Formats: sequence, C-alpha cells, structure tokens
Amino acid sequence: MIEAGQAKKIINEESKLLNRENKYEKVYILDSLNRVLAEDIYSLDNLPPFDKSAMDGYAIRSLDTQNKENIILKVKSLIKAGDSCEEPLKEDEAYKIMTGAMLPRGADAVIQIERVKVESDNLYICEEVKKDNNIIKLGEEILKGDVPLKKGTLIRPPEIGLLASLGYEFINVYKAPTVGIVITGDELIDIKSEIEKGKIRNSNEYSLKALIKNSNAEVFSVGIVKDDRTALKEKILLAFEKSDIVITSGGASVGDYDFVKDILREIEADIKFTCVAIKPGKPTSFAVYNSKLFFALPGNPSALINTFEEFVKPAIRSMSGIFKNESDEFQVVLKNDFKAKEGREKYIFVKIEKEDGVYYAYNSGSQCSNHLRAMCNSNGVIIIPKNIGSVRAGEVINGKFIFR
Amino acid sequence: MIEAGQAKKIINEESKLLNRENKYEKVYILDSLNRVLAEDIYSLDNLPPFDKSAMDGYAIRSLDTQNKENIILKVKSLIKAGDSCEEPLKEDEAYKIMTGAMLPRGADAVIQIERVKVESDNLYICEEVKKDNNIIKLGEEILKGDVPLKKGTLIRPPEIGLLASLGYEFINVYKAPTVGIVITGDELIDIKSEIEKGKIRNSNEYSLKALIKNSNAEVFSVGIVKDDRTALKEKILLAFEKSDIVITSGGASVGDYDFVKDILREIEADIKFTCVAIKPGKPTSFAVYNSKLFFALPGNPSALINTFEEFVKPAIRSMSGIFKNESDEFQVVLKNDFKAKEGREKYIFVKIEKEDGVYYAYNSGSQCSNHLRAMCNSNGVIIIPKNIGSVRAGEVINGKFIFR
Repeated sequence: MIEAGQAKKIINEESKLLNRENKYEKVYILDSLNRVLAEDIYSLDNLPPFDKSAMDGYAIRSLDTQNKENIILKVKSLIKAGDSCEEPLKEDEAYKIMTGAMLPRGADAVIQIERVKVESDNLYICEEVKKDNNIIKLGEEILKGDVPLKKGTLIRPPEIGLLASLGYEFINVYKAPTVGIVITGDELIDIKSEIEKGKIRNSNEYSLKALIKNSNAEVFSVGIVKDDRTALKEKILLAFEKSDIVITSGGASVGDYDFVKDILREIEADIKFTCVAIKPGKPTSFAVYNSKLFFALPGNPSALINTFEEFVKPAIRSMSGIFKNESDEFQVVLKNDFKAKEGREKYIFVKIEKEDGVYYAYNSGSQCSNHLRAMCNSNGVIIIPKNIGSVRAGEVINGKFIFR
Repeated sequence: MIEAGQAKKIINEESKLLNRENKYEKVYILDSLNRVLAEDIYSLDNLPPFDKSAMDGYAIRSLDTQNKENIILKVKSLIKAGDSCEEPLKEDEAYKIMTGAMLPRGADAVIQIERVKVESDNLYICEEVKKDNNIIKLGEEILKGDVPLKKGTLIRPPEIGLLASLGYEFINVYKAPTVGIVITGDELIDIKSEIEKGKIRNSNEYSLKALIKNSNAEVFSVGIVKDDRTALKEKILLAFEKSDIVITSGGASVGDYDFVKDILREIEADIKFTCVAIKPGKPTSFAVYNSKLFFALPGNPSALINTFEEFVKPAIRSMSGIFKNESDEFQVVLKNDFKAKEGREKYIFVKIEKEDGVYYAYNSGSQCSNHLRAMCNSNGVIIIPKNIGSVRAGEVINGKFIFR
C-alpha cells in the first residue's frame, strides 16, 4: 500500500512522459474554449492597427495648444469609428472624433468633448494639451510579429477575444484524451430496469461519464462486463485500443472474481501500484500499457468518484496540456467531531461555509463509501492526514471545495 | 453613477423576480449535468435494495459464534454479487459471500475472509462476531418514498450517480436562459477579414459567446449592427423576442452615435441604471423590458469581459436556478505597486500565486480597457475599493481567481 501523495507523484510522472506533441487538431475558434493551444500564436497585424481615439472629443495637433493665450481651432468634419480620414489635419484645425475612430494624419492628441466649447465651427480650448493625450497608439497592445499567446496556453474567454482580434478563425489545440471505461459486476442492471433480487443499478458508468465530461475529455464506454475473465480481458484490450486512458470500476479488490490484476499481469502491463492509503479508495491500481494509462478504480460509488477526482482528473488535465501547480487546499475549522482511524489519508465530505473570512466544515452525513448521499450534500472535503485519527470540533485541518 | 455593489443588488433582485417556474425541460440524465433540478426526486426503491455484504467473507448467524469455545461452521456454497440465494442459512451453516452480494435469509453478519481458516467445507472462526458486522443494511442510504434530491439542486457527478441508482433516465431541469447579443460599431469587420484603414476585427462577439458558453447558457446572436438607430432598434427588439437576456456591446457611451439609451427610452424599457462606478466598465446600463433583462455593456474588450463576469453571469446563474451566497474573494498581499484613482471600484487583473498558504498578487501588464493582453496574462483580479487610490507593495486587499 503506497501513500496517496506518492501515488499522485507516480501518476503525474507517467502522464507527463506521454508524448502528446503530435496529438493536436485544428478547431473553430469557439470550439477551442477551455482547450490548450498547440501552437504559438503570431500576430500578423499591429493591435490596434492605427492610432485611435480613446474618447469622444476633438483630434488636434498638441503644438497648436502650447504657449498660447486664446486657442481657437477650426473644426473640419467628423470622424466616426470605422471611418478612414484621408485629408490630413493642418495647423489650427481640428476634427471631431468618436471613441475608437482612427486619428487623421497630423493629429497627435485628442481633447475630450467635456473640456471644450464649440460655437458653429470654432473650437475653444482653455488648456495646454499634451502629445498623445487620449490616444491609443498603433501596436500599443501587440506589435506585428509578436507572440501574444504561447503554445500551452489554456484558452479562456479573453484568449478567444484576442484570437478573434488577430484574425484566427481556426486554431490548433491539443486533442482531449479519450477515456475508455469498463464497468464490472454481475450485480449490475441497466438504469431503466426494475430492481431484482441481488441486483443494483449501474450508477458508476453514469458517474464516470459525468466526471469525464466535466474534465473536458472524450469517453469510450464498453458498458457492463460480466465477471468473466475472458470477456473482461477482451473488453479491457478493446478499451486500450480506442482510448488514451482506461478505467475499470469494480473487480479491483482481492476477491475470487476480481480479475483485473491478473489480466494486467497477463498482458504484461507495467503495474505501478495496486493499493493506496486513501479512504475512500484503497483498492485503486495504476498501470501503464502501450504508452497508455490504466486505472482500476473501486466499485463503491463514492470511492470511485473520490479516486477519479484525486488520481484520474489530474492525469486527464496534464494529458490535455493543462499543468497546475498550486494546490486548491485551504485551512478549515471543524464545526463537528469527525471519527476516523489512522493508517490512511481520509477524505471526509462536508459542507464548507465561510463566515467572516474563515472557512468552517459541517458534517454532511454518513461517509460509507457505498453511499453517494453524503457527497451529494457536500460542497467540500476535509482531508485528515494518514497518521491522525479522529478530529474534534474546533481543530483546524486542510480542506477544499469539490466539483468546481 | 451608482456603486458596483448597488448595481449587483438591483440586478440580483430583478433576476430573482423573473418567474422561471414553468421554464423547465426533460433531459437525458447525462445532459442534466451542471443543470438544476426542476423537480423533487422521490425514491421508488430502498437503497441498497437488500442487506448486502461490505466485504469478501462468510455470511453467518452471529448467534452461532456467541458463548462458544470452538466455532466450526459448515460452508454451503458461494454467493457472488448479483446472485439471489433462495435457500436460507440454518444453524451452524455459512455461505461464502463476495462484496456487494445479497445476504441469504437467516444470516445477520459477515466475517472477513482474512479472519477465518477454511479446510474442505469447514469454516473455523476464533472470535465472537456481532450482529450486522460488515453488513450494509437495506435502505441504509435511502428509503422508499424518501426525497434524496430536492428541486433546486445543482446536478454534479455524485447527483448523476444517485439519479442513475434510483432509475431516473430522464430528469426535469430548469431551462438555461438564452442570451441575445447585439454587437454595435461601424469600425467592426469580420474576423476572417484583412485589416483595413480605421477598422478592427469583431472580437467582442467571440468573447461574449465564450463567456455565455462557460455560463451554460444558450446564445442568440444578431451579429454586427451598423451605427444606425433604426437598424439597431429593430435588432434589439429581435433579440428580445428570441432571448431571456439581451446584451449590447458598444454604443453605450455618451457619443452622438451611441443610440442604445435612446432606444431603451423609446420602447419604454424600465431603465435601472446607466453608469456604474466600476473600472473597467463605467458605461454599463441595465434595464428590464417585457420581463426580460437588458445589459448595455461597454465596447472596450476588457471592460466588456469584466462587466459580463460581474453583472451578467450572476444573472444567468440565478435564472438557471443557481443561487450562490458565498463570495469568491480572499485576501491578497500585493507584490507590486498598482496605480489607481479614487472614485470607482477598480478591477486590476493580476497573477495570483500562493506561497506558504498566502496569496500574492503580481502585476501582469497594462490595464488599458482596450487591451486583452493583461487579462490573458492573469489568473486573478484585485479589487481596489472606490474610496482608495493607488496601493503599494505589501498592502493587503481583496482579490479572487477569474474564469473558474
């Protein structure tokens, strides 16, 4: 049994080693949202592409306002945003100009509409205006040839805006990994079925599909496989063929009908660990086969979700090109006692509430790994370290929000 | 000009008032992910539907192990998960049983496989086993008739798992609001176009679509509308017809060609405010028309994104049935000086890094509202209150992560 932290390190090393360099695809700009850039983005233009006015006002020559008693300029005409003014501004002239409009040649400043007086076509200014006043300069944001977005950048709404302003309609992003799922258990029936004796509904396939969808990965499901070694091996190999990551749910304990580890040995997968000091989620295995990742997750519903979030999700993220260093954890003050045993890192699902800037954790019900109800009542988790048992109200330990 | 906090309160009141009761739709279970339940979920079954074994071991009668010197039970046969055992357990008998399997009638405890010795069909036990040991009881998680998930619940992966185990294949969820977008500006050209004199590419439509997609709402775009009052009015009315929320981008300042407010007055919309003490984002208007929400957002790219996140996104969330009380803000220690003027609440986009449990904010470049580059370099924002100007390295102010 290895420690949870050590398990995460091993998974992280293996995920990073997988060569994703040639795994990219060209997608439409809006489909690139929440994906990762697989190319450096060069700018073929200056942004903005011209000196423009930051205000509604008058485009002038700053010189015409300097060291003068009475400044009266002649207003020529109006330049709206989108107009291209061909006639240059001459001495003691002004153009009325709208926000975002291109400055006429010769102008080097804009004075705001609120600071002047206009009578017929005479513009009265009673202050010295500095060069570049209220002007957004050509290339101020980005110069032609710049690389404003680098390979590896996560594409969020502002990146979408920037790509659009640079004229990129299609973009190379890393392919999301496909996660193959294999659900084991003779006790499982379809969710549409009435409950029969000894059977329960196949909820894990749906939880997994939801978790994978929220991780922005693709899913390939072989569905429920009966507890039959030959059938299971065949389906696991099929999942490996079609996916980058394979997950089995159930069949990973030590029972007579838990074949997963035998099959991994038979196909000579490189088994990294078969048991983790985490609760819920001890019977979690991890292996590498044909440069693909394999996770055998527990069949208990909340253990399955917990191990997915802790072990599989970071692997999907790093295979998608997303590397996150900072931890989501913060300190939480316990509002209740929580019973626990030493020996494993314990994830206890709780309600976290913030009061006056302090996070408090409240009990959200029985933590049996067979149940989902407590997790459904929770927005967070507290993590009791391996070498600590029960904790009491008032103590401070690490926690984090879940499913965010 | 109203304060940012006051603006948020007004928007929140109006969003809550909109009657969404009859705005729900029945969707397939996996399509309900990240949506909100529009019905109470009743359980038609007990979960688990039978007493089951929590371990691989032997199903026994606890009585047979109590007050005895030598306990030797007769092993009858094996019950696997999914089996239904018809023959009841009699005195001094045991069934081998797998995790998740249904207990035979007569059995009231399971002893783990690791704690017994078996020779041919004799089971040797050297301890007293308590009633209910290693048994997950019928209905322990949920009883028939219970309401484990209430109307208004956000559906996350564990809720999906619970719905599946209860046999819900289709679920009523609140309809996501449709957001209509109207982009104004004669200076805008399509993102596929080469830059011409005076023109810039239409990036705001793409930013908005990305922001709306990340808010799990639907989008209806009328595209770019020229700065023409008649055309603009027609398109705004079309957007109202097709959407629950209408957003215009640009045309909301005080210039001669900023028609949005005139049109709102003309159609007798209930204008709530036309200017907010926020930077970037001052020229933001909010109105209610025909029980629909209207936001006139600034045309400057980063002001647009900032006001969407602060004002529109919470409205979309509450119209989708998601109510969030806790604030995302936390205290951040400044690593650089940040120049700012009093008078508005200032959102400055920064890099937030956590070091030894403390959040630090680093300058990420020019904050010109015309630029997206600083926002692209940022993972967070610091918020300088209205009545404070510049802040200096070492000071502590509120901040939060962005686009999470």
